[in-house]
Amino acid sequence: MKSKLSLITLASILCSQLCLAQTNEPVNDWKPAPSNQQGKQYPQVNSEGRVKFRIMAPKAQTVSVSFRDSSPFTKGEDGAWVGYTRPLDEGFHYYTINIDGAEVPDPNSQFFYGSSRWGSAVEVPAKDADFYALKNVPHGQLREVNYFSQSGNTNRHAFIYTPPGYDRNPRKRYPVLYLQHGAGEDETGWGRQGYAGLIMDNLIAEGKAKPFIIAMEYGGNPFAGGPRPTNAAPAAAGATNNAVAGPGGRAFNFTAFEKALLEDFIPYVDANFRTYADQPHRAMAGLSMGGMQTRGITLAHLDTFSHIGVFSGGSIATTNITDMVAFKKKVKLVFVGYGSRELGANRSGGRGFGGDPKDNTAALKASGINAVFYESADTAHEWQSWRRSLYQFAPLLFKD
Amino acid sequence: MKSKLSLITLASILCSQLCLAQTNEPVNDWKPAPSNQQGKQYPQVNSEGRVKFRIMAPKAQTVSVSFRDSSPFTKGEDGAWVGYTRPLDEGFHYYTINIDGAEVPDPNSQFFYGSSRWGSAVEVPAKDADFYALKNVPHGQLREVNYFSQSGNTNRHAFIYTPPGYDRNPRKRYPVLYLQHGAGEDETGWGRQGYAGLIMDNLIAEGKAKPFIIAMEYGGNPFAGGPRPTNAAPAAAGATNNAVAGPGGRAFNFTAFEKALLEDFIPYVDANFRTYADQPHRAMAGLSMGGMQTRGITLAHLDTFSHIGVFSGGSIATTNITDMVAFKKKVKLVFVGYGSRELGANRSGGRGFGGDPKDNTAALKASGINAVFYESADTAHEWQSWRRSLYQFAPLLFKD
Repeated sequence: MKSKLSLITLASILCSQLCLAQTNEPVNDWKPAPSNQQGKQYPQVNSEGRVKFRIMAPKAQTVSVSFRDSSPFTKGEDGAWVGYTRPLDEGFHYYTINIDGAEVPDPNSQFFYGSSRWGSAVEVPAKDADFYALKNVPHGQLREVNYFSQSGNTNRHAFIYTPPGYDRNPRKRYPVLYLQHGAGEDETGWGRQGYAGLIMDNLIAEGKAKPFIIAMEYGGNPFAGGPRPTNAAPAAAGATNNAVAGPGGRAFNFTAFEKALLEDFIPYVDANFRTYADQPHRAMAGLSMGGMQTRGITLAHLDTFSHIGVFSGGSIATTNITDMVAFKKKVKLVFVGYGSRELGANRSGGRGFGGDPKDNTAALKASGINAVFYESADTAHEWQSWRRSLYQFAPLLFKD
Repeated sequence: MKSKLSLITLASILCSQLCLAQTNEPVNDWKPAPSNQQGKQYPQVNSEGRVKFRIMAPKAQTVSVSFRDSSPFTKGEDGAWVGYTRPLDEGFHYYTINIDGAEVPDPNSQFFYGSSRWGSAVEVPAKDADFYALKNVPHGQLREVNYFSQSGNTNRHAFIYTPPGYDRNPRKRYPVLYLQHGAGEDETGWGRQGYAGLIMDNLIAEGKAKPFIIAMEYGGNPFAGGPRPTNAAPAAAGATNNAVAGPGGRAFNFTAFEKALLEDFIPYVDANFRTYADQPHRAMAGLSMGGMQTRGITLAHLDTFSHIGVFSGGSIATTNITDMVAFKKKVKLVFVGYGSRELGANRSGGRGFGGDPKDNTAALKASGINAVFYESADTAHEWQSWRRSLYQFAPLLFKD
């Protein structure tokens, strides 16, 4: 009976995919996206993962969306333009609307920082969305903090996740994961579209991860120029604001961030939160550019970090390790995650970040290092890969 | 020498104002607004308080902005449309851009929740902006929290400001101010565009206010329909998310919020933060609709709140008080704030929120109640009035 049902299900999936490929007619089971603003009926998502937009623009001549291979938008008698995308991967996608040549955010979407701007994004509900669902479990807190960096003469801004129960026992101390965003993103990413807090709340509630603090700072943006805005009044004379980005340019030079992290942020976190301020209780991970930063910074500071996570940001080859004996002694975990669509048929993934990540990780493991490779099914260089990577990574941290 | 310079300054100000009135040519000292996204050169603000916009829309036929009496937008050869506003009041103003009939956020602006949507706003730097400037002083934390309301079967979402030093002494307890947003706004308003945290950090650093906790919940929105979005996955079965708004409509019925505040939020705050959980250490204040809620809820619960703040949301008349003896005994402060431009020449302010606020407050004072009226110079029903009101109100709280 069970296999019969499965066959029917399979047949119906195949049929629906083939029929669609022929007719290109979207399945008519649209529902408002969970990323919409309150009360907004559009964008809508259907069971194929297509997204349908509706933009009021009565006098416009053309309206389109930044997703490639989308349908043409057509204007109704009410002045609203409607169009839809190809089937998209499950998860979170940034986009813009184009109205007569103007690239603007969709006014129906909530806003997120990515692609070097605050703008719109759509959430295509994932089958495994339960692991970052908001549930009736004990919740941690996401704390927005400002602090002054003496070494950088800079006001800095960060988010700190404290696990459930943090305020209950004022003598209990916690390990810390330093968790970095990608290029074109900022310190809001992991707490907002990354759902880091909800992922941890759920893991901890199920007893799958130890409670730890997550510290999220701005790692700079090689694609964005100009100062970061702060509030209306000038800050302390001569001070800049999280001035890590520097003058822009694509140098991917992480020196300023490395300095800010080691000289300012880690000391700030250790002084202001109940951490175990030592190497065995300190992890670093990041996505894309943040993964590259993680690799570079941890390899140069093995006395500072014991657990390493690289999500879609390259991997660590045995040739990157200058002293294998010291590395084995100090590093308790190397975790490398990728979306399957980044790896491709020839497993050429890593986008030039340094060799085949799966092979590199297997070689580390063969060398006796606790190395784990994770492949997120049917996702690309996007947040669903990174949410899943964190979900896989967190339970492996601080196990002893 | 000093008076001579002042005369010259005065003459030059007068001249510039008169000349402008005649020629309508904006003063050419434009600077990027502090509310812009990182690296964005527009919108710009000049010394008159005009705001100039630049929107790339090469194929558009008309572009405009929602500020009344703005200049027509003209298109340059680069495809960018440029236009500017009349001189605006100092402070923070929501706006939208219209491109061929489409009302969209300005892609150059940071985004804020107001007017029942996440959208653009511009900060016209105020002469007194120093009181909410980000400075190198000890900072509190703005904590984003989720909790489950049993009585409402609702996931609720709030922000809690904890003052500098909160984590230092685990035995110290603090009073709490419950601080509400206006209609069309939400629990993000006071921490984001209201700068409540920076206002408190600065007041505390100067010894002008006692450290206290500020608790900010969603008070509902009579103008917004539909459920509030949460994350991608469904919440606990049957649960809604901060479902205070109800079905919409302009009923201004605060029963659901009153219940959520008293039965869920105050108990949550008292259980999870180190509060003095008693009437002498509990204040409530709010702006506009939040002021109306404050008036209604505090008057009905004088055993719960001892300090009352109503910002641009009406006032308390002696006729609102059923038992003056009990009121005098229980209420330590009634603070009423308004922007001067709301009060107008005939002091008809209060927008029908119940009598003349200045006269009402004077009558309270004459009755022996510690009642304070504050008028924010040259501001209207906007955030600069409410930032200033908080700045005036906070030092008066919990004085004994």
